[in-house]
Amino acid sequence: MSTERIATVVGDLIRRINDAIDEHEVTYDEYHAAMNYLIRLGEAGEWPLFLDVFFEHTVERLNQGEGGTIRGPYYVPDAPWLEHPYVLPQRDDEKGDVLILSGTVHSTGGRPVPGAVLDMWQADADTYYSNVQEGPPPFNLRGRMTADDNGEFEVRTIVPPSYHLPRGGPMEELLNAAGWHDFRPGHLHFVVSADGYEPLITQLYFEGDRYLDSDVASAVKPELVLGLRKHDSPEEMEARGLKKPFFTTTHEFRLKPQDG
Amino acid sequence: MSTERIATVVGDLIRRINDAIDEHEVTYDEYHAAMNYLIRLGEAGEWPLFLDVFFEHTVERLNQGEGGTIRGPYYVPDAPWLEHPYVLPQRDDEKGDVLILSGTVHSTGGRPVPGAVLDMWQADADTYYSNVQEGPPPFNLRGRMTADDNGEFEVRTIVPPSYHLPRGGPMEELLNAAGWHDFRPGHLHFVVSADGYEPLITQLYFEGDRYLDSDVASAVKPELVLGLRKHDSPEEMEARGLKKPFFTTTHEFRLKPQDG
Repeated sequence: MSTERIATVVGDLIRRINDAIDEHEVTYDEYHAAMNYLIRLGEAGEWPLFLDVFFEHTVERLNQGEGGTIRGPYYVPDAPWLEHPYVLPQRDDEKGDVLILSGTVHSTGGRPVPGAVLDMWQADADTYYSNVQEGPPPFNLRGRMTADDNGEFEVRTIVPPSYHLPRGGPMEELLNAAGWHDFRPGHLHFVVSADGYEPLITQLYFEGDRYLDSDVASAVKPELVLGLRKHDSPEEMEARGLKKPFFTTTHEFRLKPQDG
Repeated sequence: MSTERIATVVGDLIRRINDAIDEHEVTYDEYHAAMNYLIRLGEAGEWPLFLDVFFEHTVERLNQGEGGTIRGPYYVPDAPWLEHPYVLPQRDDEKGDVLILSGTVHSTGGRPVPGAVLDMWQADADTYYSNVQEGPPPFNLRGRMTADDNGEFEVRTIVPPSYHLPRGGPMEELLNAAGWHDFRPGHLHFVVSADGYEPLITQLYFEGDRYLDSDVASAVKPELVLGLRKHDSPEEMEARGLKKPFFTTTHEFRLKPQDG
């Protein structure tokens, strides 16, 4: 970043914040409470959470646009590579409805992207992310897989229920103090990548979730909201080797060619 | 603070910052650099410095106005009480020109405030604050004193040379990266208080300082810039019991009655 760029952007941010302090006639007590809050936010390790909830959606829209959304703070690299048939790593008694997601990875021009890599992660039904919060075993509900020669893939996981942000820290404290809820619609995270394409960072949401229109992280886009089809006939369950009903859905990820 | 107040002010700050991200087309690299910076700012303990340099001046103008200015991050309570004749605690070989500051504490209505307390502190000539940075002994150049029955006082200290912010941390890094200098005009800090009055937080500056018009903390006001009179005749020095020339200046602090 050039000196000029930093001076322009940081200078403008400082000016806008001073304007807000001025217009709202912020008191010394409020100023000191804010200072104390920012210190505690760092001590609690919640800067990535705070920034990704309040600001990443703007950065994302500028830099990815359609088909993408925020990555959020809980991506972990080096998730295990899955073997066919793909099942996201999970406990034997993993809570939640079974979901079979099938789909394709295409270029924005519409051509299949054979061998595209899908790096996928999600919270468990109790809102805990493995490798981040206590509870799930390492890399629970995290995995990497490849699309086939036609750019197609299918993976079994659980339907993510409505999600709330981690509680007990400064982030929850602020949302409570402002009277804002801390929910996101349930979601699956992906980074989809392939040689010659820009990596696509995105999430998938599901119709019927009550927080689709009020995501605390402002990260829902209409093209990322999928319908769910329920399968509960004995034949369908047996064909899948499942003992309980399951849901299916499908999605097309579209990758932008690099330099294009 | 009420829920509504927090939602209004915090919501507006979030909106303004998103507007700035949008207008400047902030990239993911820049976003992650900013996140990393905010984390490091906290780890270095520089939030009070950062906020007081960039934002306290606005809070101050809203809440004190004329005659006051920012407190800054280096106030320390419980400074020693001085005995007459007042001399701010200092080393035998304290660097800097001798300064004798005399003055009065008046009400904004013009009446003397007998027994007003002046809590005074300043950096040494090498820019180090005692009890904060390594170097000076505890409470060096910090002390409390009272105005006399006429609201008058006189204290001997050193003329504060131009001051730069502490270096080696994220604050200096940002100022360097933006191409901004890190200087403030040399200054004396005061909190002046008395029963029945609002405490006055302020600083005094001196004519001729090259940073009067470009204070990195935006905290200079014309009524706080004092002239210095040099005294170098043997008679004057002897009358003061000094072996070197000294400077004098004078200032009237004006306290606002409470609830008035």
